[in-house]
Amino acid sequence: MNFSSTLIENAVREVSKLPGIGNKTALRLVLHLLKQEEQNTLMLTEALRKLRQEIQYCQKCHFIADKNICSICASKQRDQQTICVVENSQDVMAIENTAQYKGLYHVLGGVISPMEGINPSDLNIDTLIERVHQPDVKELIFALSPTMEGDTTAFYISKKVQIPEIKITSIARGIPVGSEIEYTDEITLGRSILFRTPQN
Amino acid sequence: MNFSSTLIENAVREVSKLPGIGNKTALRLVLHLLKQEEQNTLMLTEALRKLRQEIQYCQKCHFIADKNICSICASKQRDQQTICVVENSQDVMAIENTAQYKGLYHVLGGVISPMEGINPSDLNIDTLIERVHQPDVKELIFALSPTMEGDTTAFYISKKVQIPEIKITSIARGIPVGSEIEYTDEITLGRSILFRTPQN
Repeated sequence: MNFSSTLIENAVREVSKLPGIGNKTALRLVLHLLKQEEQNTLMLTEALRKLRQEIQYCQKCHFIADKNICSICASKQRDQQTICVVENSQDVMAIENTAQYKGLYHVLGGVISPMEGINPSDLNIDTLIERVHQPDVKELIFALSPTMEGDTTAFYISKKVQIPEIKITSIARGIPVGSEIEYTDEITLGRSILFRTPQN
Repeated sequence: MNFSSTLIENAVREVSKLPGIGNKTALRLVLHLLKQEEQNTLMLTEALRKLRQEIQYCQKCHFIADKNICSICASKQRDQQTICVVENSQDVMAIENTAQYKGLYHVLGGVISPMEGINPSDLNIDTLIERVHQPDVKELIFALSPTMEGDTTAFYISKKVQIPEIKITSIARGIPVGSEIEYTDEITLGRSILFRTPQN
């Protein structure tokens, strides 16, 4: 596309690098910013720059944080006995939004995947093992993707923990609320029968 | 949504102000930037800031420009006798991409719309009338939206021009290439019969 302005061209090129944003959408967003007050664009660019330059990762759980300890790890209200192991920070946010979990988290930063060259040493597994050895911890919950890589990672970590006092669990798999049984895949449906729960 | 980081919260709030981007997409984009090199975010924010602070509008045609005269008005290759009147800069880009037009443009900055409080004095009409009075100009092409506002604006300007030597035309309306006649709306189809063109 010919923008006849290198300023627009540069802005569109940078915006269209974002996932799911093509050239046309990028141009629409850029022209939208031009129509707005200058202040709005400066607020946007400043928020992004500040985020990228000042963001930290919690030294305990590796979740995104403004300080070196995240608000969850710093909170006295949280159950210190339970650690929920997740792949990334988005997963923490998703679980937090359910308001069903009051324990701590541990962000691995991915799952073991030999195909993509991700080895256990690339993940935050060592710090998890360290945390597990603290006397407080009573339960480790795996909330990893229900894929072979997720299962492998959970298996690898549970083998490494080797503390019989610690209960190791995995989030329930089964048919999602609101879905229809006839359209559920066989493996999920099969597991949901095997791992049936008592009717309240 | 609880992001447990004011840096993320601010970034998501600013990004979600963009049109068509909700909270979830904004979070996805923001977390994507966090995964990338810091340099990428700085290039994006710098391109947007530079665009917003340094952009100019062509003094002749009001099209977006890097200097005070846009590349189209500055070009000696363009046909100086024809001015195509459009609503906004996107329209210029769209027509430029067809590579079918070699004349000049004039960006009105909108169309007359009493409903939205847009009066002729809010648009770049005076500068257009000035340009039309230059001896070079032989034709004025209206490429405005096929709406009542667009038609009103074209009518208003054509009444103001009042130079019999200047040919005033409007871009063709009819059924778009690739569409099906049976699904075309009645007004478009009716007009396309009335304003039929000779078969080459």
